[in-house]
Amino acid sequence: MKRVLTSNLKEHAGEKVMMQGWIHRIRRLGRVTFIVLRDRAGLGQIVVEGVNGNAAQMTNESVIQVEGLARLDDRAMGGAELQALALEIISQPVEPPPIAVNSKDIYSTTRLDTILKHRAISVRNLEIRAIFKVQAQVTAAFREFCIQQDFTEISTPKIVSCATEGGSELFQVQYFEQKAYLAQSPQLYKQMMVGSGLERVFEVGKAYRAESHNTSRHINEFVSLDYEMGFIEDEQDVIQMEVELLKHMFQHVRETCADELEMYNVSVPEITEIPQIRLAEAKEKLRQLYGTGDSVAGDLTPDEERKLCEYSQREYGSELIYVTYYPRSKRPAYTMPDNEDPDLTRSFDLLFRGLEITTGGQRIHQYDLLVESLQNRGLDVADFEAYLEAFKYGMPPHGGLAIGAERLTMKLLKLKNIREACLFPRDRTRLAP
Amino acid sequence: MKRVLTSNLKEHAGEKVMMQGWIHRIRRLGRVTFIVLRDRAGLGQIVVEGVNGNAAQMTNESVIQVEGLARLDDRAMGGAELQALALEIISQPVEPPPIAVNSKDIYSTTRLDTILKHRAISVRNLEIRAIFKVQAQVTAAFREFCIQQDFTEISTPKIVSCATEGGSELFQVQYFEQKAYLAQSPQLYKQMMVGSGLERVFEVGKAYRAESHNTSRHINEFVSLDYEMGFIEDEQDVIQMEVELLKHMFQHVRETCADELEMYNVSVPEITEIPQIRLAEAKEKLRQLYGTGDSVAGDLTPDEERKLCEYSQREYGSELIYVTYYPRSKRPAYTMPDNEDPDLTRSFDLLFRGLEITTGGQRIHQYDLLVESLQNRGLDVADFEAYLEAFKYGMPPHGGLAIGAERLTMKLLKLKNIREACLFPRDRTRLAP
Repeated sequence: MKRVLTSNLKEHAGEKVMMQGWIHRIRRLGRVTFIVLRDRAGLGQIVVEGVNGNAAQMTNESVIQVEGLARLDDRAMGGAELQALALEIISQPVEPPPIAVNSKDIYSTTRLDTILKHRAISVRNLEIRAIFKVQAQVTAAFREFCIQQDFTEISTPKIVSCATEGGSELFQVQYFEQKAYLAQSPQLYKQMMVGSGLERVFEVGKAYRAESHNTSRHINEFVSLDYEMGFIEDEQDVIQMEVELLKHMFQHVRETCADELEMYNVSVPEITEIPQIRLAEAKEKLRQLYGTGDSVAGDLTPDEERKLCEYSQREYGSELIYVTYYPRSKRPAYTMPDNEDPDLTRSFDLLFRGLEITTGGQRIHQYDLLVESLQNRGLDVADFEAYLEAFKYGMPPHGGLAIGAERLTMKLLKLKNIREACLFPRDRTRLAP
Repeated sequence: MKRVLTSNLKEHAGEKVMMQGWIHRIRRLGRVTFIVLRDRAGLGQIVVEGVNGNAAQMTNESVIQVEGLARLDDRAMGGAELQALALEIISQPVEPPPIAVNSKDIYSTTRLDTILKHRAISVRNLEIRAIFKVQAQVTAAFREFCIQQDFTEISTPKIVSCATEGGSELFQVQYFEQKAYLAQSPQLYKQMMVGSGLERVFEVGKAYRAESHNTSRHINEFVSLDYEMGFIEDEQDVIQMEVELLKHMFQHVRETCADELEMYNVSVPEITEIPQIRLAEAKEKLRQLYGTGDSVAGDLTPDEERKLCEYSQREYGSELIYVTYYPRSKRPAYTMPDNEDPDLTRSFDLLFRGLEITTGGQRIHQYDLLVESLQNRGLDVADFEAYLEAFKYGMPPHGGLAIGAERLTMKLLKLKNIREACLFPRDRTRLAP
């Protein structure tokens, strides 16, 4: 007998069908047992009448298979229920689970550490499952847009011999006899692939930062949504591509995740355009509005990011704002300097609901300028031989960006901690599960 | 002026348009210069008449921008050419490139080592670019099928605290003060996510094997196309899902990569069904046909894989064949033993054109049996605490598989070495570029 999912039960009213799943909730009223069954599609109701040997042993989280008659019932979830004719226990819990799976307010009853420690169980909770449904749609929409825009998907190595940004914060790998590192980003490789004639490339892959602070905004292994594009005028082409990308992604999430958004009581911004502000102007504006508080030269502090988003919301009605023209000293060597003020760069960050979710910009495409820029950072150009080669034989102006998938998911659902948006986060102390 | 790609030039016949790209080939005939321009879409022809200061400096691989008049010309590739009115050099090679980019037979003129060393340049060659166009379509089709079949995309950690298969061949990572490893596969995590109620999950991600041999079939970092599904009868459900997947992928590649397949003079198999043979029978058949040659107990040697595919082609007209019922001693601890003969497993490999491209099977879903199986391998169950927990609270029968993306691409295009199907391969000695 073919299996029917909870979401499709109503369509089969009047038919004999089979359902499988976990017992989300069970209630016994005399000779009648009411089961709320949970499967990958959601919840459905089953009614077991009369005595059934198996029914007596069932508990929450038992995996069961039920054959029965589907019938319409306005009182049941989804407008239908299954009247059980035969019931089989497929797998029985050995003890009650460590997470209250069917809790409707899991966050108020369960600590985040507990949720993360018991991931295989905590994702059974529908509120938590919703996060990963949204994240799957976010990445699917990213790829869909990139493919529509004629980007080619690439896969670049995560074991690398030198630092992408020339910095520290690298995890070291023993690669046979050689020392290697985990890639901080696909930056150098995606630029090389622009120069390889693919022109437009994207990658959804892991990136690694051995940052030793342990904040609610950082994890040490994250999913980076990267694209890089050739034949641009300047960083504005990269930004305009992202504005269209975000429109597409947000629309896709609205269409596919209505239930999940409702669970979190959030709405996804309707983007028309996204305001831009130069970093120096942002700093000045924040000084005017909030005085000289927590600050740092050449960048925004987390508190400034939050305040700037408040300002953007008030001033432009936008929950997103681009910050542009970061100083050259604060950006990687490959960042294109500004023509008018070479201390500044054609780079940008995108802030969303108080958090940076994208870093991007135009890159240097001139071989000589790039060599000079690497040398000015004290980097050994010999370490960048293969990268530099891509610039020697004809390289178009290009730029790109990276979006942190977990950060974007976190902000879409207004989660408090980025770890909630990662199935198995890696942080300063967390290496398992 | 809006840019037009080489593939769209004909549609703009009679219009003034702009084109950008690399000079693939240049020929000067008196006052007329013929340029074959290469962009991400392919090749197009440009004619420059009269004297032009820039035109004189152009060489192969110069990046140029040309404004001109599109006009129909049956003799030109794509049926149209651009009559240049203004021409600008965007980026000029500093010297001739190390790869004959416009060679039509790159493999006969250039060693694989040279191709890999100069990846940013070698992918400019259209024959080499074709490999990565095909690979992008292979992974896109994999995801498309999984999403259609209601699988949820997941992203699991690649820095792990213990070995997936309990074996050696692990790359070690220094994770702050702790020792960690690069994941050999997402196996344990995807099973946990089946048990989390997602039921059907897939992942496209990197996997790492510190295998010290250096063969034409192995790379140490590869892209693993993984799925795992719950509520199966047995491994046949996993196999049938893959048969449908391969039909979808192969059809997609035929539709989207006709030019690329033609370049390699290959066709993609039309799958109706895929024959299956038990390992023991395969061994016996090979003995009958080829005598006792190169062999090894409980597995197939590379030579046997080739011969078994020859047999499959001859006997069943199929370039693919499943080998089933591998012995328990040769499969990981989580593999479901056969009910009738517990020395065998409900596992399988899929061979394609002489090479194993998939390993899969049904997994143990019973907590007690799994603990026993781990202990029988001498593994410490404490190392598998979070994994085992997923089996304690209701776990459906499940199974899944992994397809090596580079191996599949290699076999689709009949490439000789798997490194050809990887942009930046990592092998025993190769850590750069």
